[in-house]
Amino acid sequence: MSSSPRIAEHEIHEHFINRWSPRAFIPEAIDEKTLLSFFEAARWSPSAYNSQPWRFLYARRDTPNWERFLGLLNEFNRGWAQHASALVIVVSKTTFTAPGATEESPALWHTFDTGAAWAYLALQASISGWHTHAMAGFDQDKTREELKVPEGYDLHAAVAIGKLGDKSTLAEYLQARETPSPRMPLSKLAAEGDFSL
Amino acid sequence: MSSSPRIAEHEIHEHFINRWSPRAFIPEAIDEKTLLSFFEAARWSPSAYNSQPWRFLYARRDTPNWERFLGLLNEFNRGWAQHASALVIVVSKTTFTAPGATEESPALWHTFDTGAAWAYLALQASISGWHTHAMAGFDQDKTREELKVPEGYDLHAAVAIGKLGDKSTLAEYLQARETPSPRMPLSKLAAEGDFSL
Repeated sequence: MSSSPRIAEHEIHEHFINRWSPRAFIPEAIDEKTLLSFFEAARWSPSAYNSQPWRFLYARRDTPNWERFLGLLNEFNRGWAQHASALVIVVSKTTFTAPGATEESPALWHTFDTGAAWAYLALQASISGWHTHAMAGFDQDKTREELKVPEGYDLHAAVAIGKLGDKSTLAEYLQARETPSPRMPLSKLAAEGDFSL
Repeated sequence: MSSSPRIAEHEIHEHFINRWSPRAFIPEAIDEKTLLSFFEAARWSPSAYNSQPWRFLYARRDTPNWERFLGLLNEFNRGWAQHASALVIVVSKTTFTAPGATEESPALWHTFDTGAAWAYLALQASISGWHTHAMAGFDQDKTREELKVPEGYDLHAAVAIGKLGDKSTLAEYLQARETPSPRMPLSKLAAEGDFSL
């Protein structure tokens, strides 16, 4: 993996390279209209058969749901994400009604499509001057029970959303990691013709 | 599902709402530098532990790989995608090396993360004046064999990339579908607190 700074190998919109996932946030409120605009971007994601499997449950800081959502994270993530402005649980519907069908069938692409929706959420937030950080470290069973997520829906990620804070507010061992992450070179990701990666 | 035109319920960047998935393409060549810029945007996607599981195999029209890739699509998709400029197979690595580990373990989020990378690919293409259309309808077994995709990698989607053509070039029954698709209202996708969707 390259340790070089974030320099694009090919010309792309600055949106993509500007987005990154910090842990230091300023603990300020987010208004609901702003937060909904991030889901709005996600809403326009592509999906198989336009099935739109993505669902988002959210809590804003300084509201009654905040502590409930914070309690779903593991201790490590709770340590820094407590300073965020919103927490989101990303969910997907695992079945869909195929074109012309009257009953639901398994949605084979619900995870892939919901990843796409998350990507647009993160990008719109970044464009609007906010930052997002997705976490695998949350208690799925507890989340399902606490937030009453029914069968037929999968849980994928928790996301912290906030305004970028000063890294000096983080525990010392996290300060060194508080920088936009590098990427593998494109030559390891894309190949013309046969798989040769 | 709303049949209303594409009007955002909340203010978002026009990039998101401008992107859509047509089937009518002008059969013109794409230069490799342009195509690589779409993968470049995908490269900057977020992923669990920055594991970057996404991989892309591609063929450009008027090159020796073109017919091989076209032959992986089902007949329906081949009918319209034959006029595209590039075909891409989206692949993911199913294992990763966790931080501090010396051996690989299952990458639980490889599908979700690869969906995110696809979303950025599609958006950069749209920003650059191209269009993408992802397809589930391709032969996974044939693709794995033909393109020599090893074990430990999953296949997710085929993607056609091209310049928007006139819908009159499509079969008549497809012409009526050649329009940006609507979306469910945001109220069906996002909820504050408990699942109530």
